[in-house]
Amino acid sequence: MPAHHTSPSLEASYVLLAESVRRLVDVAIRSEVGIDDVRAAAAKIDSATAQLSAALIPGARGVDRAADGTTVVWGNAAIGLRNAIAPPLVVRHQTDGRVRADATLGAAYEGPAGHVHGGICALILDHVLGATAHQPGRPAVTGTLTLRYEAGTRLGPVRAVAWVERVEGAKTFAVGHLETSDGVTVRAEGVFFHPLPAQT
Amino acid sequence: MPAHHTSPSLEASYVLLAESVRRLVDVAIRSEVGIDDVRAAAAKIDSATAQLSAALIPGARGVDRAADGTTVVWGNAAIGLRNAIAPPLVVRHQTDGRVRADATLGAAYEGPAGHVHGGICALILDHVLGATAHQPGRPAVTGTLTLRYEAGTRLGPVRAVAWVERVEGAKTFAVGHLETSDGVTVRAEGVFFHPLPAQT
Repeated sequence: MPAHHTSPSLEASYVLLAESVRRLVDVAIRSEVGIDDVRAAAAKIDSATAQLSAALIPGARGVDRAADGTTVVWGNAAIGLRNAIAPPLVVRHQTDGRVRADATLGAAYEGPAGHVHGGICALILDHVLGATAHQPGRPAVTGTLTLRYEAGTRLGPVRAVAWVERVEGAKTFAVGHLETSDGVTVRAEGVFFHPLPAQT
Repeated sequence: MPAHHTSPSLEASYVLLAESVRRLVDVAIRSEVGIDDVRAAAAKIDSATAQLSAALIPGARGVDRAADGTTVVWGNAAIGLRNAIAPPLVVRHQTDGRVRADATLGAAYEGPAGHVHGGICALILDHVLGATAHQPGRPAVTGTLTLRYEAGTRLGPVRAVAWVERVEGAKTFAVGHLETSDGVTVRAEGVFFHPLPAQT
């Protein structure tokens, strides 16, 4: 993986770019304009894509190094600040050991009409439960994940909360839930572990 | 939900628009151009967003009616042809009763470096297992979903396969897996049901 040392202002411009792309994703779903406007908008988008494509890393983003030396996951599908698919989740480690993430989910995250797709609920809970097992520079991966959908999750503000139930050797057993102003909508439990270093 | 009767060519232009947005999402993650180009690209994107925003439905897309009278889910986070977050999955009901979906997942779906985010695997499997229980105009919702991650899922072409194990009353028990050229990477089982009509 390349370790990119970019300036804070360049990093910030890419974060703003992704925010622009998120707004575009939303209106591309909800727009009702006519065909001429759709085609003109697509031409502008293709022009932006061409401009950004003048220099591309191959493959995917992987793990980068930020200007301050910390590792960052710009491209991550749940938390990546440069990934317009990510809400993005902002994961907070509370002083009580719990992990929390808040997000506001709009039209792009819909499954049943007016509600968050069950698989998006799973994406958020996978990431937040997994974050209880993360260590700096040593992310955990999912072993098993079980989700119980207790109510529909309405589009809008959601919160995910997770905590460690117990640790057995390399395995972290985590539990948590997704909630809205309606209360808890999805409960989750999962087992996460740290991949062993490759044997040489 | 509004039932929009749009012409096939307008529908097609929105599908092409979403494909343009998907390419943009990808390069916005992988781009290495300098700050002037990033800002110029963002300005083009914001201009496209403004143009598309001249007429917007409020909230989310819900279920629309296509020009040919069938129901379509343009905005769905897994399969929505107008939703740039959706790969989109193309779900096929095979003659043997299995449901299959193929997708090629790039940088936007990354979790661990070079691999699909575990939560994206969950999104795909939730949708494909759920599709075994779908009936025309009467989608199933997820009751429980259990995922067992057996290997990392490399970015690139993936296939999800699911089938009904048994039906008990309103509940459909479905199983399936995600696979790549490496073999099966994630196994899933879930219970899906049809929400009861609202009581009056």
